[in-house]
Amino acid sequence: MTWSATVLTLYPEIFPGPLGQSLAGRALADGVWSLRAANIRDFATDKHRSVDDTPAGGGPGMVLRADVVAAAIDGVADGTPVLAMTPRGAPLTQARVRDLAKGPGVTLLCGRFEGFDERLFAARGIEEVSIGDYILSGGETAALVLLDACVRLLPGVMGAPLSGDDESFESGLLEHPHYTRPPVWEGLGIPEVLRSGDHAKIAAWRQAQSEADTRLRRPDLWERYSSARVLSPSGARRQKKEE
Amino acid sequence: MTWSATVLTLYPEIFPGPLGQSLAGRALADGVWSLRAANIRDFATDKHRSVDDTPAGGGPGMVLRADVVAAAIDGVADGTPVLAMTPRGAPLTQARVRDLAKGPGVTLLCGRFEGFDERLFAARGIEEVSIGDYILSGGETAALVLLDACVRLLPGVMGAPLSGDDESFESGLLEHPHYTRPPVWEGLGIPEVLRSGDHAKIAAWRQAQSEADTRLRRPDLWERYSSARVLSPSGARRQKKEE
Repeated sequence: MTWSATVLTLYPEIFPGPLGQSLAGRALADGVWSLRAANIRDFATDKHRSVDDTPAGGGPGMVLRADVVAAAIDGVADGTPVLAMTPRGAPLTQARVRDLAKGPGVTLLCGRFEGFDERLFAARGIEEVSIGDYILSGGETAALVLLDACVRLLPGVMGAPLSGDDESFESGLLEHPHYTRPPVWEGLGIPEVLRSGDHAKIAAWRQAQSEADTRLRRPDLWERYSSARVLSPSGARRQKKEE
Repeated sequence: MTWSATVLTLYPEIFPGPLGQSLAGRALADGVWSLRAANIRDFATDKHRSVDDTPAGGGPGMVLRADVVAAAIDGVADGTPVLAMTPRGAPLTQARVRDLAKGPGVTLLCGRFEGFDERLFAARGIEEVSIGDYILSGGETAALVLLDACVRLLPGVMGAPLSGDDESFESGLLEHPHYTRPPVWEGLGIPEVLRSGDHAKIAAWRQAQSEADTRLRRPDLWERYSSARVLSPSGARRQKKEE
């Protein structure tokens, strides 16, 4: 079945944009997924087609109106979960991406200006999602990121189905470093073990590198990984197998 | 002076894409910033123009070659910091975005496949940056996000210069919720205080909401915010002013 993506935006012309290229673009052309970008402005009801108004209580910027955006959501409803791209949302994780990719698709809400009228979220059961702790000019680039992350996981999209299994975050760790030819470049060699042909030794080295890099670069991920490993029997089994 | 963005990618046709629209697009047309997308493949030296090779030590996927990518970096060098978009990188923050926006520009390296040969990073003093804990099909959508975040901060890009000062993350907190007309929508009202006209009370309510939402939704940010508030005299001053 086709994985269905709907984007509600004031800039529908942004889509598919980068998602029309490469892996995602080929999968879109092949019907593995579908993409519909609808203009929120088409659901405005006044003659100026206004979608926003000044913030209650004052302050700079404009706020997207709950009534107009709700009409847009209701107008495109197809049973897929509705996610609003907003810095106030829950941080997007690879686990959430994997869940969404397994489902029927997504409906993504892209804000502009100061964001959405807060009443919208509870009234329409909307999940608020943030792609990171920085501010964008709108939700559109965030939607492109979320869709790209999901689409690459759809069956048949990635060339080699194995590619992806031990990437960063899938195991709770950063991925190990990679090397390729030439064996010596600007006086720098490739770690000897990778040229040994000993698959068990290579796997152990990669696991150790993943752990060392995660501990050093991302103490937050390391903390979560090591406590899960202590507590969960499946984590313990997995680690045993790798050692 | 024009803020200069250079993107090294295998898909230069993706750019400017979304950055040609709206605020960023207007600023690009006005010469507030410039964008150059160069194809890494143009720096390959063999007759097949190959940019990647199989991973040393085996495994699925392909790795971008250090020699070809380094030639690309050297070929476009303009003194701006070079950042590689990679899930192994340091998480992008609004503080880093603000620093980059204050500088002369950026050179962004977009990976595909399994990523870059690790030797590249130290050899060229490259900063590894991640936009979030999920995996993309390539660095291009991440580069769009980073550029959008920077460009909106360039002088003259945002309509109202005040819009932005108290957004999420700028103060270390999530932004407070917003409301706008209609005052009652589907039986839901706007918090009474926002209709009081009492600016001090409104500011206090917004600060309290920011704190409550951050504590609930992002205990990680709250932890950092509250310890900084205890330790830093400037944080204490700021808080005093707001109360």
